[in-house]
Amino acid sequence: MKTSFFLILLPLISSISIPHHKIKNNKLRKLWLDTEFKENMTPFYKERQKYKPKICELLKNLSEIELIEGKEIESISDQEKIKELFPKTYGFRSIEIKKGKNNFDLKKKLRLGLVFLGGNSPGGHNVIVGLYDALKEANPENELIGYIGSMDCVFSREFVPIVVMDDEIIDAYRNSGGYDLLGADKIKENEFEYVLHALNCSNFDGMIIIGGDDSNTLTAKLTEYFYENNRSNITLIGIPATTHGNLKNKKIETTIGFDTTAKTFSQLVGNIERDCMSSRKYWHFIRIKGRSASHLVLEVALNTHPTWAIISEEVKSKNLSLYQVAENIADLVEKRGSNGFNFGVLLLPEGLLELVPDFRNLINEINYYLVGEFRNITDFDLQIDYIHKTLNREAINLLDLLSEKTQKELINNRNERNRIDIIMLEPEKILAEIVISILEKRKSKIPFIPVYHSFNHEGISAFPSNFDATYAYNLGRLSMILSAAKITGQIALFKNLNKFVEDWIPESFPIIGLMDIEEKKNRLIPVIKKAFVDLDGKPFKYYEKIREEWSQGDDKFAFPGAIQYYGNRDICDLPSKTLLIEKS
Amino acid sequence: MKTSFFLILLPLISSISIPHHKIKNNKLRKLWLDTEFKENMTPFYKERQKYKPKICELLKNLSEIELIEGKEIESISDQEKIKELFPKTYGFRSIEIKKGKNNFDLKKKLRLGLVFLGGNSPGGHNVIVGLYDALKEANPENELIGYIGSMDCVFSREFVPIVVMDDEIIDAYRNSGGYDLLGADKIKENEFEYVLHALNCSNFDGMIIIGGDDSNTLTAKLTEYFYENNRSNITLIGIPATTHGNLKNKKIETTIGFDTTAKTFSQLVGNIERDCMSSRKYWHFIRIKGRSASHLVLEVALNTHPTWAIISEEVKSKNLSLYQVAENIADLVEKRGSNGFNFGVLLLPEGLLELVPDFRNLINEINYYLVGEFRNITDFDLQIDYIHKTLNREAINLLDLLSEKTQKELINNRNERNRIDIIMLEPEKILAEIVISILEKRKSKIPFIPVYHSFNHEGISAFPSNFDATYAYNLGRLSMILSAAKITGQIALFKNLNKFVEDWIPESFPIIGLMDIEEKKNRLIPVIKKAFVDLDGKPFKYYEKIREEWSQGDDKFAFPGAIQYYGNRDICDLPSKTLLIEKS
Repeated sequence: MKTSFFLILLPLISSISIPHHKIKNNKLRKLWLDTEFKENMTPFYKERQKYKPKICELLKNLSEIELIEGKEIESISDQEKIKELFPKTYGFRSIEIKKGKNNFDLKKKLRLGLVFLGGNSPGGHNVIVGLYDALKEANPENELIGYIGSMDCVFSREFVPIVVMDDEIIDAYRNSGGYDLLGADKIKENEFEYVLHALNCSNFDGMIIIGGDDSNTLTAKLTEYFYENNRSNITLIGIPATTHGNLKNKKIETTIGFDTTAKTFSQLVGNIERDCMSSRKYWHFIRIKGRSASHLVLEVALNTHPTWAIISEEVKSKNLSLYQVAENIADLVEKRGSNGFNFGVLLLPEGLLELVPDFRNLINEINYYLVGEFRNITDFDLQIDYIHKTLNREAINLLDLLSEKTQKELINNRNERNRIDIIMLEPEKILAEIVISILEKRKSKIPFIPVYHSFNHEGISAFPSNFDATYAYNLGRLSMILSAAKITGQIALFKNLNKFVEDWIPESFPIIGLMDIEEKKNRLIPVIKKAFVDLDGKPFKYYEKIREEWSQGDDKFAFPGAIQYYGNRDICDLPSKTLLIEKS
Repeated sequence: MKTSFFLILLPLISSISIPHHKIKNNKLRKLWLDTEFKENMTPFYKERQKYKPKICELLKNLSEIELIEGKEIESISDQEKIKELFPKTYGFRSIEIKKGKNNFDLKKKLRLGLVFLGGNSPGGHNVIVGLYDALKEANPENELIGYIGSMDCVFSREFVPIVVMDDEIIDAYRNSGGYDLLGADKIKENEFEYVLHALNCSNFDGMIIIGGDDSNTLTAKLTEYFYENNRSNITLIGIPATTHGNLKNKKIETTIGFDTTAKTFSQLVGNIERDCMSSRKYWHFIRIKGRSASHLVLEVALNTHPTWAIISEEVKSKNLSLYQVAENIADLVEKRGSNGFNFGVLLLPEGLLELVPDFRNLINEINYYLVGEFRNITDFDLQIDYIHKTLNREAINLLDLLSEKTQKELINNRNERNRIDIIMLEPEKILAEIVISILEKRKSKIPFIPVYHSFNHEGISAFPSNFDATYAYNLGRLSMILSAAKITGQIALFKNLNKFVEDWIPESFPIIGLMDIEEKKNRLIPVIKKAFVDLDGKPFKYYEKIREEWSQGDDKFAFPGAIQYYGNRDICDLPSKTLLIEKS
């Protein structure tokens, strides 16, 4: 069986000397380019390789692109403080893109690096593909080099695994999901010197960094670091990619991957709804990825019209307790049940437990009090006695509502730091148990059978939807143009994403212009503000107005079906509902 | 807001008198035909309503269909015994369908009933659609009446909710998933008289029964009952529909719904694989629907090339214990880990725990010994002491391998019959816990982080794939023809399903011909033999041969992507891999 290792190491770029970069064989990563791989390709995958994302009108002809500098950009707030932290790179100008004669050297040979940071996001590979196609179109001698397994594993160790992109590699990854061509991780601030060193030694002209809010914040910091070290000639361009949808602001309309992930989850929720209204006996509690932000929950709700969707931002803004959230659901269960509907579909954000004050209090109490001597008590009844003597009333009340199984889990299971691992808890089950207790207290006769689901890995590496494939491809192309024009410290973006791709408007915006100061662990640090669902925004307002209607009966469910890639544009190419409603 | 209730009750068919059938308002079911419903329809759903399944060559022209009687059919085994049980209906002849002049009265007015039995299966609605279209084509005065919520809820009570099908209803349900037009349940044998009574009183010519092995067994029994009561003129036709794929034999190549469910699960498993090979740190344990049969597991494995798939039939045939199964996985974890692959994707059947002797023994021991005085012990250490004194060694050894949390769950949680509810246990977690214990015992340094998934409702009511939509539509059409020809006690089926629909060969086969005798709870009863994965069959042999290769590295994963409905026939219209391999 023929297998080929396509790992090429920096030292192989012969003209360059890089100290301390050696090969470690067991770290070699086999790329998917050999015969076997092609044999294992599904018919659909082969078809997707041939798909050509459309290019927006303004970027179609590389030689007819003119970059126009806009005004100096200030940070969102805390301008003085942020200026202090970014003395060299504060006040960059935004860049408009127009049809016109190139006012930069398009043909000059470029060597660009590229890295994925953060979680997998469908479309990531297409940034590489769009960037590569544009590079080769501008000058066939241009080079694109991907850093494998991220800078983190790369620059702090003795070797630098990279992939030098060529047609064969690029063609194998066109329109595919996952980040597996390179993998992804993090760059830490104390590794900036390695990053600079590697890029500098190898005569790189610039690097493209694909990631979410943290990664783009880091791109800004790295740019400042490069300036401090007189290497402003090496440019850095950020690309917005995250499935959570929480990198969104006045400039960034959406991120790569949000659409595909939301559509995949919506397909599944729609399927569950159809099943639920057929068998008419289960309440489906569906946990949706996104930690304590509810962008995905809201988007899936807008696509599927579930019985109810818990929006974390609303829970937080109303300061609802978990008990109150559960009480609202118990009300809904009873109301529907009294009309003969002993079933429903409920969406909840995975980070729900982290933001409700009563559950946070319970966890804090357990972490604080149920240590030391308590850990020697093995009898459950004695444990409960101890708890009743030590924990505060609110914590005891909430604990009492949980099943014995969950109580035991909370009381006895600890992580290596001897604390409850809140991330390991299953919020959909805990919520349903409280609903059960409330219904029992009320002596309700309404049947309530919960069924649990949790959606995460099922969607975050899917084949990108046409929207994400196209968005990513165009961002890759735009990032090449910006790099050629020696733009740095900026994020590539598009306006008008609610329209079809022909009408998208490319733009470049200084990352610092998206920042403010946040307090984290008693330190003030500059960050791109994480976006939460805007309770005054049109998408939530729309849902808020209609949810009462959707919560009744079973004829409001909507079934989006599986993502379609070929056919009617209104079925295959539209972006997320959130975006469409926001721009309507 | 306009809402319409499209529930029509038998008494409304005015010329017929049916005693004891009254309306109960709170049982009314709102159908999805009003303006609101259409507003809530997704663009994809609207598109699917327009899809026209192709019709096989032999059924295209209703007036050119000739039915040819074949030989008298014997049951698979126990012929004498089965003949005794079916004195009136044993020995029916199979029916071949040929191009030719109708040798039955196609135009005679027909009134047919229809009911779903058993679990939701994608394509069910299209049986109704195909049947309706054929009925109206043969004679516009023909009537199709669906029984809502099944005979079970219908005939034993005082009311008979039905839907009289019309164009508007049918058009709304074309190519849709779920069973929600009628819902589904069971007919019990003591309700046969109600079924006969209702069909007889209302001058029905026959009924179509859509369901799996049990439902078709029941159709045979019901036919015998009709003969016994001199109502052989009311015909009964069975349609094979189940997602589990366990109604399969020398005559039935596959069932409605298996393809869609397997393709939806395969999409998700492929997505997880791509995610897994990108982040390279998790072992995904994926539970697949199908109870103790592994048709779906095998089909998903053939589509996705996972690291490993546990086939229940193999486990059973080798009499493997859960411990041995876990040990094999621990070996695989270590072997892959030593090559730098600390990740993998494992498929397992949902019924795994029910068939491994060591876990069954543990459950039996707990159910038998941990009752009475044991239930008064609340201290976990004392419970364990008690267990060590009472349970057999094998049970104790297995229990010791589980996490404290699972131990407590097994020891303390009981259902209303004071027994462990094996169906509520999560086999993927229990298996992974044993793997963890084995790795710990071996002092393995290989990281092992399991992540859990369970696929069931996510797929069983999806929009039917083109294959299922077409198969169901053609079965509906065939069942109309058989009913017009006064065929009864038979199952409608097609041969050549591995080819495109044009070449499918319709056939009708006496259900008794698929039966043998099984012992159930000390009683000998006639049943259609449940199909398990044939370990000597081509699909398993193929997997067995290649699985070692697929278990290595990460370049063997295959990503089927979401079901596509429009475009290239080799992507959109092919049936399951199992079927293609079986017929190759």
